[in-house]
Amino acid sequence: MKKLINGHDVLLAESLLGFGAAHADLVRVNLDPRFIVRADAPRPGKVAVVSGGGSGHEPLHGGMVGPGMLDAACPGEVFTSPTPDQIIAAAQAVDGGAGTLLIVKNYSGDVMNFEMAAELLAGEVATVLVNDDVAVEDSLYTTGRRGVAGTVVVEKVVGAAAEAGRSLADCAALGERVNAATGSLGVALTSCTVPAAGTPTLEIAEDEIEFGVGIHGEAGRRREKLRPADAIVGDMVADVLADLAPARGTPAILLVNGFGATPLLELHLVYHTARRLLEDAGVPVVRTLVGNYTTSLDMAGCSLTVTLADDEILALWDAPVRTAALRWGM
Amino acid sequence: MKKLINGHDVLLAESLLGFGAAHADLVRVNLDPRFIVRADAPRPGKVAVVSGGGSGHEPLHGGMVGPGMLDAACPGEVFTSPTPDQIIAAAQAVDGGAGTLLIVKNYSGDVMNFEMAAELLAGEVATVLVNDDVAVEDSLYTTGRRGVAGTVVVEKVVGAAAEAGRSLADCAALGERVNAATGSLGVALTSCTVPAAGTPTLEIAEDEIEFGVGIHGEAGRRREKLRPADAIVGDMVADVLADLAPARGTPAILLVNGFGATPLLELHLVYHTARRLLEDAGVPVVRTLVGNYTTSLDMAGCSLTVTLADDEILALWDAPVRTAALRWGM
Repeated sequence: MKKLINGHDVLLAESLLGFGAAHADLVRVNLDPRFIVRADAPRPGKVAVVSGGGSGHEPLHGGMVGPGMLDAACPGEVFTSPTPDQIIAAAQAVDGGAGTLLIVKNYSGDVMNFEMAAELLAGEVATVLVNDDVAVEDSLYTTGRRGVAGTVVVEKVVGAAAEAGRSLADCAALGERVNAATGSLGVALTSCTVPAAGTPTLEIAEDEIEFGVGIHGEAGRRREKLRPADAIVGDMVADVLADLAPARGTPAILLVNGFGATPLLELHLVYHTARRLLEDAGVPVVRTLVGNYTTSLDMAGCSLTVTLADDEILALWDAPVRTAALRWGM
Repeated sequence: MKKLINGHDVLLAESLLGFGAAHADLVRVNLDPRFIVRADAPRPGKVAVVSGGGSGHEPLHGGMVGPGMLDAACPGEVFTSPTPDQIIAAAQAVDGGAGTLLIVKNYSGDVMNFEMAAELLAGEVATVLVNDDVAVEDSLYTTGRRGVAGTVVVEKVVGAAAEAGRSLADCAALGERVNAATGSLGVALTSCTVPAAGTPTLEIAEDEIEFGVGIHGEAGRRREKLRPADAIVGDMVADVLADLAPARGTPAILLVNGFGATPLLELHLVYHTARRLLEDAGVPVVRTLVGNYTTSLDMAGCSLTVTLADDEILALWDAPVRTAALRWGM
C-alpha cells in the first residue's frame, strides 16, 4: 500500500485539520467529536441540514458544507459510520430552532447511528434516506439499495430549499421526491485500498471490471471483461433508465462521478456518450456535473447519476451555493 | 491498461466534445483544428490570453478558459505539444485587437510550436514561459526547468489583469514576475499510463516513490523509499523554500495539486503539513487551492506550488473567475 499518510490512525484528524484550514472562510472543524459546520452556523429560523457517513468519499460530505447546502457533516473513520455522539453534537451546533433534517445514505450502520441520534436530539427531526444505486437490491452493508453519488443531488436541492426558508416537513418531502427521481450505477476498473487494511478491497484482473460496484469497492451486479467505454456506458444508461422509467421529454440532471483515480479526460468522454444516449432516449440533459464528487478513495472507475427534474428541482439546483466542492451564484 | 475509452486515437476528440457540452455556458470547442475558447470571445479591446499543451493534465488548460482567466486553450494529443496551426487558429478566434499573450510551459516542443505560431500571428504577441519546477535544471523534455502546476497561478493572475484591461506589456511583465515568484515540487507514488503506449511510463517498486517527478511521469531528482507523509512533505517544502528564498513574513499562495489518483483525504493532510512548515519558516499561507489542477493522467502523488505574493498578486488572485476548474466572485 502506498499512501501519503503518517499512519492510518491519525489520517482522518490530520486531513480534517487541513480541510478546515484550507476552507476557513466556509467551515469550522471540530475534532472531538468530529464534525464540520458552516462557518456562519447556527442560522436562526432555518432548518438545519445535517449529513455524514464514512470518510474516503471526499468531497462528500464535508465538501458540501456551506451556504446553500449542508449545515453540518459528520465524518466517520474510513468507510465506517459516524457515531451517534458525533451526529448529536453536530446537529446541536447548527440548530437554528426550525428543526433538523438528517440526510443519510442507506447503509445499515449509518441508518442505525443516525436513528439513535434522532431519538436523542431535542426539537423536531426528520430523516431522508438516500438509496439511488440501481445496481443491487440488498448488499453487503445494506438492506435495500445503497446510497451513492445521488446524495450530492439530494443535498444540493434540499440545501437550497432550507436556505430559502422552507419548513422541515417541506424539506423532508422534497428530499424523498428527489431521491425517488434519482438513479445511479457505477463501474470499477481497479480496487480501492483502505489504509487500515493495507491491501486492495477487491481483486480485479487486468482485463476485468466490476459492473454495478458500490462506493466501498463492494461487489456489484457482475464481473465482466473490459469493453470499449461506449458499450459499458450504454449498459449503465440502460440500467438507470430501466429503473427510472422516465416519460419522454423529462429533463434530467446528469452527474458523471469519478471514483478517485479516473482522469477527467475519461470522465468527459463518458459524459459525452451518456448524454447522447439519454437524449436519444428522450431525456434531455439540462444540468451537468462532471468530476470527483463521491469517491471511493483511490478506486478507478466512475458512476452515472440521473435525476429526473422539474421546474422546482431545477430552480433549487440553480440556487446559489458556496462549498468546497460546489460553488456557483455567490 | 484499463481505461474508459473507445480507442486512444479517438479519446481526445470524444473527451473534448463532452467537455464542450458539459460547459456550454462557458466555452466553445473547435475540433479541427482543436481549440477551446471562452463562449463570449472575442472581447474587443482586451488582451487575449492563450495557453495550451499536451492533454492528460486536465483540468489544465481547457478547464481554465473563461471570464477572468484564459481566452483560449489548445490541447495537443496526450503529452504532446499542440501544433502551430492550432495555436494560430485559437489566437485568431479570440483576438480582441489589444494583442495576444501566450502562456507556455517550458517544454521544448511547446516552446518551439508556440514560437512558430507567434511569428505567424498578426498583431502584437508576447510570451510568458512558465518554469516553476525546482526539481531539475534540464530534463528529458526541456532545456532549463519544467513548467508544472505553477502555471495555474500564472494563468489566474495574468488572466485577471487582462480582464481588468491592462496592456499586453503589463500582462507579460506580470506573468514573468509571478513565474519568478513561484516554485513547485512533485512526488509520484505510481506511474501514469499513456493510452497510446498502453504500459506504465515509470517502473516504481511497491515501497518506492519518485521525488521531484515531472507531470509526464518523467524522472525527477531521486528514487527513494516511501516514508511517512510528513517526512516527504518536509523535503518538498525545504526544496521549494531553498529555491524561492523568501524574506521572513512574505505571504504565500499554496497549491497542493493532486496528480490524478490521490484521494482528497491525503491532499488535505499534505496541505496541513505543508502549511505548518511554511508558517514555521516565516511564510504565512494567505491563499489556498487543494485538488486536482495539473494532473498526470492516473498518476498517484502530488505537487506543492508556492507563490510568494504581494498586494497586487493577491488582488488579482481574488478577482472574479468563472471557469470549469476555478470559480469564485461571479
